Amino acid sequence: MRGNSFGNLFTLTSFGESHGPALGVVIDGVPAGLKVSLEDLYQQLERRRPGRLKSTTSRNEADYPEVLSGVFQGKTLGTPIAVLVRNKDQDSQAYEGMQDDYRPGHADKTTLMKFGIRDHRGGGRASGRETLCRVIAGYFASLIIPEVHFSAKITRIGPHQFLSTKMSKPSQLGLADPTQDESIEEYLLALKSKGESAGGEIVLNIKNCPQGLGEPVFDKLKADLSKAMLSIGSCMGVTFGLGEEFSRQLGSQISKDVTNFGGIEGGISNGEMITLKLFFKAPSTIGKKATEGRHDPCILPRVLPVVESMATIVIADHALRQNAFN
Amino acid sequence: MRGNSFGNLFTLTSFGESHGPALGVVIDGVPAGLKVSLEDLYQQLERRRPGRLKSTTSRNEADYPEVLSGVFQGKTLGTPIAVLVRNKDQDSQAYEGMQDDYRPGHADKTTLMKFGIRDHRGGGRASGRETLCRVIAGYFASLIIPEVHFSAKITRIGPHQFLSTKMSKPSQLGLADPTQDESIEEYLLALKSKGESAGGEIVLNIKNCPQGLGEPVFDKLKADLSKAMLSIGSCMGVTFGLGEEFSRQLGSQISKDVTNFGGIEGGISNGEMITLKLFFKAPSTIGKKATEGRHDPCILPRVLPVVESMATIVIADHALRQNAFN
Amino acid sequence: MRGNSFGNLFTLTSFGESHGPALGVVIDGVPAGLKVSLEDLYQQLERRRPGRLKSTTSRNEADYPEVLSGVFQGKTLGTPIAVLVRNKDQDSQAYEGMQDDYRPGHADKTTLMKFGIRDHRGGGRASGRETLCRVIAGYFASLIIPEVHFSAKITRIGPHQFLSTKMSKPSQLGLADPTQDESIEEYLLALKSKGESAGGEIVLNIKNCPQGLGEPVFDKLKADLSKAMLSIGSCMGVTFGLGEEFSRQLGSQISKDVTNFGGIEGGISNGEMITLKLFFKAPSTIGKKATEGRHDPCILPRVLPVVESMATIVIADHALRQNAFN
Amino acid sequence: MRGNSFGNLFTLTSFGESHGPALGVVIDGVPAGLKVSLEDLYQQLERRRPGRLKSTTSRNEADYPEVLSGVFQGKTLGTPIAVLVRNKDQDSQAYEGMQDDYRPGHADKTTLMKFGIRDHRGGGRASGRETLCRVIAGYFASLIIPEVHFSAKITRIGPHQFLSTKMSKPSQLGLADPTQDESIEEYLLALKSKGESAGGEIVLNIKNCPQGLGEPVFDKLKADLSKAMLSIGSCMGVTFGLGEEFSRQLGSQISKDVTNFGGIEGGISNGEMITLKLFFKAPSTIGKKATEGRHDPCILPRVLPVVESMATIVIADHALRQNAFN
Repeated sequence: MRGNSFGNLFTLTSFGESHGPALGVVIDGVPAGLKVSLEDLYQQLERRRPGRLKSTTSRNEADYPEVLSGVFQGKTLGTPIAVLVRNKDQDSQAYEGMQDDYRPGHADKTTLMKFGIRDHRGGGRASGRETLCRVIAGYFASLIIPEVHFSAKITRIGPHQFLSTKMSKPSQLGLADPTQDESIEEYLLALKSKGESAGGEIVLNIKNCPQGLGEPVFDKLKADLSKAMLSIGSCMGVTFGLGEEFSRQLGSQISKDVTNFGGIEGGISNGEMITLKLFFKAPSTIGKKATEGRHDPCILPRVLPVVESMATIVIADHALRQNAFN
Repeated sequence: MRGNSFGNLFTLTSFGESHGPALGVVIDGVPAGLKVSLEDLYQQLERRRPGRLKSTTSRNEADYPEVLSGVFQGKTLGTPIAVLVRNKDQDSQAYEGMQDDYRPGHADKTTLMKFGIRDHRGGGRASGRETLCRVIAGYFASLIIPEVHFSAKITRIGPHQFLSTKMSKPSQLGLADPTQDESIEEYLLALKSKGESAGGEIVLNIKNCPQGLGEPVFDKLKADLSKAMLSIGSCMGVTFGLGEEFSRQLGSQISKDVTNFGGIEGGISNGEMITLKLFFKAPSTIGKKATEGRHDPCILPRVLPVVESMATIVIADHALRQNAFN
Repeated sequence: MRGNSFGNLFTLTSFGESHGPALGVVIDGVPAGLKVSLEDLYQQLERRRPGRLKSTTSRNEADYPEVLSGVFQGKTLGTPIAVLVRNKDQDSQAYEGMQDDYRPGHADKTTLMKFGIRDHRGGGRASGRETLCRVIAGYFASLIIPEVHFSAKITRIGPHQFLSTKMSKPSQLGLADPTQDESIEEYLLALKSKGESAGGEIVLNIKNCPQGLGEPVFDKLKADLSKAMLSIGSCMGVTFGLGEEFSRQLGSQISKDVTNFGGIEGGISNGEMITLKLFFKAPSTIGKKATEGRHDPCILPRVLPVVESMATIVIADHALRQNAFN
Repeated sequence: MRGNSFGNLFTLTSFGESHGPALGVVIDGVPAGLKVSLEDLYQQLERRRPGRLKSTTSRNEADYPEVLSGVFQGKTLGTPIAVLVRNKDQDSQAYEGMQDDYRPGHADKTTLMKFGIRDHRGGGRASGRETLCRVIAGYFASLIIPEVHFSAKITRIGPHQFLSTKMSKPSQLGLADPTQDESIEEYLLALKSKGESAGGEIVLNIKNCPQGLGEPVFDKLKADLSKAMLSIGSCMGVTFGLGEEFSRQLGSQISKDVTNFGGIEGGISNGEMITLKLFFKAPSTIGKKATEGRHDPCILPRVLPVVESMATIVIADHALRQNAFN
């Protein structure tokens, strides 16, 4: 009821303040007997870690997760899987004197409106650091639907647009066009040096999603996916399939080619590729404060595994829901 | 779990096939002792009724709701409020021979993928007619938060854009600019005569929303509102505040003026006006089929009360949630 | 949240005041394609109907249910099944002057404490008439687990104990010993003439329950069954297996014969017969008021299908839950 | 859905195997700004700790909890409170060779039936050690309803009955009659030396419960309390108020004195003392196995804080529910 849990049959409950002793997540609803690879889990977490790229924040946490329960001899037990991540390098001194300092577009002021009290060191619950709980849960969700493939790519950063290319070399920054890596890294370092920041667009493709997932009325697949995406801090919008373009076409222009519908018809997956476009705003912490709090000039590279994880959780949950009634 | 219920403390459970005996809704979580005006309820339903405008479908149902429970001597009892609407004029003959006919972008085929069985007469559960349950629930939600004002306006139909004006005369079609009513009505009738259809954009403004609503992690106000909107059949996307424009601004450009954040910071309402933009695709039933099934060339005028109702339900639910912990 | 819904994957939402226009139930989570027999449904309802026995209340309602949705051409659609029962013969005049009259052990006074308002005509939501919603839901739950057999028998009424017998002739009153039917009917008529009433004990046996149902911690099968039973108005207690006797045995006395554990070990079904004993208090409406309100001297005969239905709902729900993760 | 969470507005999610790295609990729904005393929390945990009495198991764990989140500068933040307890002294060697050894009345065999896999070291999820999560949650629940007083006493162990006395000196064993402490301690040691065990009865009194808690249909206060009690491992039954005696009285005998109804009428609290009687079976691990696994001859003394905690959680949850709609 306080919105720290997500999912229906596959559920995660996330806890922890960014500058408290630890963050963690309890994942329930993972079927018993699935093989767990901590190596794969670490690899996912590595993607969202600050300090990985030159342009991202230098907060150098290990983000080393400890699995406390639910896994025995390398397999899931069917019981809740709790995973803990200690906060080692939180440097709360950087936040001294910020008790009454509210960053626009952040939860600082509204947290106080809501609870009448807040942990002013960093974002507290609203910190981007909370998203590592989602990536951990996303890994366990992927064990349920190993055949489904999730791929999020950056298609724009600030004014710089990237067209999808089919290159073998992956982009270190997660750009749709890997050839732009170097110039964008420079662009971001330049932003950083000025205390400036940028937002952008991410496209998520979900391939090989089983047919028949999603429920026809309130829990349409597009409804649940959009909630999952908008639950990510800086995400300010989502469109499906052709998106805004869709709303400009006349009925006769909407091709009967089902791929145009973004893989979802009537709220239910049709087996085709599901496509979402996401809009992210720039981090609004800028200038001196940004430097001290060590924030990114652009969070999009680090947000990619979060986007994929949230989508994995939604699809896994709906797969279990469908399974229940078959 | 089958997605026919919505909400946490204020909940609605919707039931009924478009061509079965009846549709209805059970609304739970309405506090006791609130005054109920059936007149106000009918007025809301009137707005989404087919046949109201010349250009909308001629299916002439009364949509006359019967309150079966939860209201006694004009006041809510605190018990579930069930409201029933009979299907009087469903003309299922119009759907004869359509058992194997799947409309693109509709639930026809995916319903069969999901359930292995379907009521082929009209949209079944996925019919737009289901939305009257939401409007009924929206009315009762509004009793909980009478101070909040919800206003949805059409800002574009197909290629025709409408700028918001502050005219005293309201638009019959729900356009942001009432002076365009006549020309757009003609445009829609022309579309209808060609068996053509159009989508468009709707802007929703929520004024006077209390501060502190929304939860900081998964149940951010923007997350729950986006799910509510994307649960509407033809809605293909949602953006908050400045929307896509937001994602193009650099951090320094994002004004400290809180109104730019669309009334929500860190997922929690800040007391400012909340603004959403919604994208709707054109109905994909066109030509001969559309005529026989009597569909609208543009659903946007009728979808406005549905948009407002779903938003009302989300805000009322979050108001109760916040109330629980105060 | 207001406790009008029950179940997790198989859910029912009950609505209606005993003296309002109607009662009804929305049942969700019934898999698609199951054959429905209204005849079987009516037969179940017949068992709990007042006026069936000479000694039970003479309120002569048809309790004729109307299926409004979710069933098409004799099969479930996988969509919510709404069933409506009109209140035809509620005679609310019998309750005139009872606005300030609170029956001990009933919800009359506590409803007012809770909601600050109440429908004083009959029990409102707390009326025994609400249980017909449970019997309707129980019928649909039984379609999910047709192999499981539920049998509730009366083992005591007031001071009269009945030993289970294996007679072919069933008891009209639902007594464990059908040979006692006549004398108990006389006993009850005598109680009725005196405005007196009696409680008693019911034993419920669940045969052929699949192994592995129930969850190891909070949703133990015994926990969910006990909630289901204690949600019945007059039920004041439940014990499992050997019951109180169990608590008197030393560890070495508890036989390794698994049947002693009442079919549930560690909260999970073991495939053996599950046995519950239930304690019901006498209706506390007595004397003049009872005559006017037309209440039963003993509700146990009519409560049997309610007991069986609630158990069916719990087992069906757990069967779906188990199915989801397999 | 896997039954590791409990509660609606006040919720706890418990995790951990008895012989894995740790157990823990995430508590959500605690209002912000409440004062937390770790001293009080430790004191509650101390009561359920093994090794406290001579006759209870010698497993000497500190059960020292670490609060990981949700508390800042001695006050609740309104965010989830995670509490971790490491398993220090689990001695899993004692369980070697027990892979195929199923204790009757325990979850050993049914866990395998359910999940197809199990952690054979101790009870896994079904271990009594899991109950420390409930005591931790119970402490935080008590902060919400400090005015309500919960008192559980042992009224029988095996054949030894204890009558409630109003002595100032509390019983070390939690007996209703403190004068019996010494003789019962001897009785239990004698049982232990023989590898024998005993069950018994506990009476729980809830004083000063606010009026109007509980919902009139499925979530009656007695229904939710009974689920809470039957979710405790060895609990085999619960009765309310006069209990079985109730079912023997005729309607005219049921006094109008509301105290007889056990503080609950129509499922809703009436402000009087709420009384429950609970039946516990003897632990069925006996003889050699019991010695090696170091189990108690009687769990009742240690179960008292668990009983009180589960009741506290139910009442706190219902208090928040009631608060939401006022």
